[in-house]
Amino acid sequence: MSTQPRPRAAVVVTGTEVLTGRVADANGGWLAERLRGHGVEIGTVVVVGDRAEDLRDALAWLTPRHALVVTTGGLGPTADDLTAAVVAEHQGRPLLLDAALRERVRARVEAVAARRGWPVDTPASLAGIAKQAHVPQGATVLEPVGTAPGLVVPPTRDGHAPVLVLPGPPSELRQMWPAAETSPVVAGVLAAGAGLEQRHLRLFGTPESDLAAALRDLGPALDPLELTTCIDDVGELEVVGRFAPEDAEVWQALADALAARFADTLFSPDGRSLDLLLAEALREAGATVATAESCTAGMLASRLADLPGSSDYLTGGLVVYANEVKRDQAGVPQAMLDEHGAVSAPVARALADGVRTRLGTTWGVGITGVAGPGGGTAAKPVGLVHVCLTSADVVLADELHLNGDRGRVRRRTVEAVMHRLLAQLRG
Amino acid sequence: MSTQPRPRAAVVVTGTEVLTGRVADANGGWLAERLRGHGVEIGTVVVVGDRAEDLRDALAWLTPRHALVVTTGGLGPTADDLTAAVVAEHQGRPLLLDAALRERVRARVEAVAARRGWPVDTPASLAGIAKQAHVPQGATVLEPVGTAPGLVVPPTRDGHAPVLVLPGPPSELRQMWPAAETSPVVAGVLAAGAGLEQRHLRLFGTPESDLAAALRDLGPALDPLELTTCIDDVGELEVVGRFAPEDAEVWQALADALAARFADTLFSPDGRSLDLLLAEALREAGATVATAESCTAGMLASRLADLPGSSDYLTGGLVVYANEVKRDQAGVPQAMLDEHGAVSAPVARALADGVRTRLGTTWGVGITGVAGPGGGTAAKPVGLVHVCLTSADVVLADELHLNGDRGRVRRRTVEAVMHRLLAQLRG
Repeated sequence: MSTQPRPRAAVVVTGTEVLTGRVADANGGWLAERLRGHGVEIGTVVVVGDRAEDLRDALAWLTPRHALVVTTGGLGPTADDLTAAVVAEHQGRPLLLDAALRERVRARVEAVAARRGWPVDTPASLAGIAKQAHVPQGATVLEPVGTAPGLVVPPTRDGHAPVLVLPGPPSELRQMWPAAETSPVVAGVLAAGAGLEQRHLRLFGTPESDLAAALRDLGPALDPLELTTCIDDVGELEVVGRFAPEDAEVWQALADALAARFADTLFSPDGRSLDLLLAEALREAGATVATAESCTAGMLASRLADLPGSSDYLTGGLVVYANEVKRDQAGVPQAMLDEHGAVSAPVARALADGVRTRLGTTWGVGITGVAGPGGGTAAKPVGLVHVCLTSADVVLADELHLNGDRGRVRRRTVEAVMHRLLAQLRG
Repeated sequence: MSTQPRPRAAVVVTGTEVLTGRVADANGGWLAERLRGHGVEIGTVVVVGDRAEDLRDALAWLTPRHALVVTTGGLGPTADDLTAAVVAEHQGRPLLLDAALRERVRARVEAVAARRGWPVDTPASLAGIAKQAHVPQGATVLEPVGTAPGLVVPPTRDGHAPVLVLPGPPSELRQMWPAAETSPVVAGVLAAGAGLEQRHLRLFGTPESDLAAALRDLGPALDPLELTTCIDDVGELEVVGRFAPEDAEVWQALADALAARFADTLFSPDGRSLDLLLAEALREAGATVATAESCTAGMLASRLADLPGSSDYLTGGLVVYANEVKRDQAGVPQAMLDEHGAVSAPVARALADGVRTRLGTTWGVGITGVAGPGGGTAAKPVGLVHVCLTSADVVLADELHLNGDRGRVRRRTVEAVMHRLLAQLRG
């Protein structure tokens, strides 16, 4: 609820490999997070390939509309790395060789080459070094972390943003960030932003439209908050609130109202992940888990092992893909398999009990279902998954009906089981 | 090598969750691939949040410069889903309620609600249904796959592109694509493209710089090809070539040259994935696999179950996280654990043999390592993983030294084992 509009920034990601989706961009979101800490919002991310005219077009669109434009990538030694030249031209500054910088780049290239046993005095290598040492007149150089320097290139025209030019490799970009954010021109932009707080909460099992209705009901009291809601591929809803520090109690009132209205589904009032919360609940209970998975085939066990220290609660498990493995390794009676079929509530329970008693854990999980795309019948269609959680004195059985492709049915099954176990541990 | 410029398209991804990096965009790259098959190149991807003015600005920038603009996302039932309204306004077409479409959307919402046990006649739900049934005058409706219809919205001004409006969830978008690409306005744009061929090949274990050197050595003979190389997070190198149909033999010559130079590492000369190739090799050999995984904790078994029909070769497995499970379920002798430690070559072999004989498979896989970040010692540092593949008469043991965080060590282990098994099956 600042009264003046907050400065906004845009990011231009360059690189054909990102444009075509073969490499996911890791920089846009990271930069958004950093800038938001200064109260500067990223409104737009543009991805362009290695074509000069597309980058030129994007800069022409963005610099009049933003307080800062950040480019990532295109700073390498080869001809298709053209960011510095295009930015220089766009900002109306000639690109000049910085001889002292060339020696520093050369030293860095030599160090890399020596480590890898590459020659450094080839014409290609020397040309690349000279290229990386060309700087737009009047720009600030950010010392290279890899071999490419970053640049802060101020505008020469009124009403245009400065352009901060950063390297593409995420580790280089991140190491260069402290120098970037403290360089005078960038720091000037950031100073105009008011630092915003950001909080998250997470729900599972509430439809997005119900959440939207709840937010509408709370009405204008929420105006000081910038709220975003999103739902992920397995059905988890996340509410993200950004607000000025003095509006912290407005967020807290919202969080309390949602916790009251969605008591059964708001599992994370502080945004911590399901994985972390389940790990914490298992540790607090001193409980251990063993899994017997058919259609998920180890996906649950693998997920439970994602966090460091998971051996505190994950003992092990069985991947019971073939029926003989269900019988011989988990102890599911052959007669039960014959009578009810592998995808059935009794088999899910027998899997849970079997793996729990064999591995000696507090909890056993049994999962058996039809992930598809084949194998469905009228009685047992694709997406039907029987899950069962048992302990010495508790049996929690669920019959899930999931839609989506094979991968999604399996991922949603894992998610559902983890939520079920978390809810049970919390009582 | 077409002589006239190919038509170009742009994609606008909407969604604050993508903009802030919390959700990775899965649609841009997929659409780029589809369009490229028609000879239409994507030159720009723009990501905007859920603000009408940013989307409006992006459309104003893109529609005069492209033959087609595709938007993804922002078609849900809530107020921050505003793509249809903004596109209608941009294209100069009033948004009108389509009563028949409303009934079809309602039926889809009811089906989803019934499956989940949600009420459907709430005011929020009815408002959402009506919202999703509003269509820009003169637009073509693409029938909903989830609950949101897609739209093809032609321009009303000369020199502007039609806008194809698609839903954000990747599975919905993909299922809607056949209707989109055959709708007359989109098909008209695609017909102007000259189809380019695209081929892939994949290597594992060759440094990117060696591949770059090989491509340099082949020199100007490769000029008719548009080549991209990229390396993924587990070290797989992909070479993508695009070329006019008459240049197919140039690609073939390149593929042959790389196959000769990188005989040991070029595992996929036609771009098929490791998963597919391994499935095929296992089927051809009539072989089955069982896994005993410690640090990967089911990740390999789960990956082997990713493809439909995987029960042809995946029998099952053990997640042997705790040492007692290694001993009791996989039959690793306690004395061996005491003498060599759990992370050791003998234990990896005993796991492979144990699970293979217990589950009665052709191949057994044993994996035991230090995924980190804790648990490393000078003798057994983080990243050390012992893997072993055994059959009745073959033993293949490897000691891997992997860098990267916990997740990457585990993913790289799975990748390495799958490559090892594929190479062995191919002889």
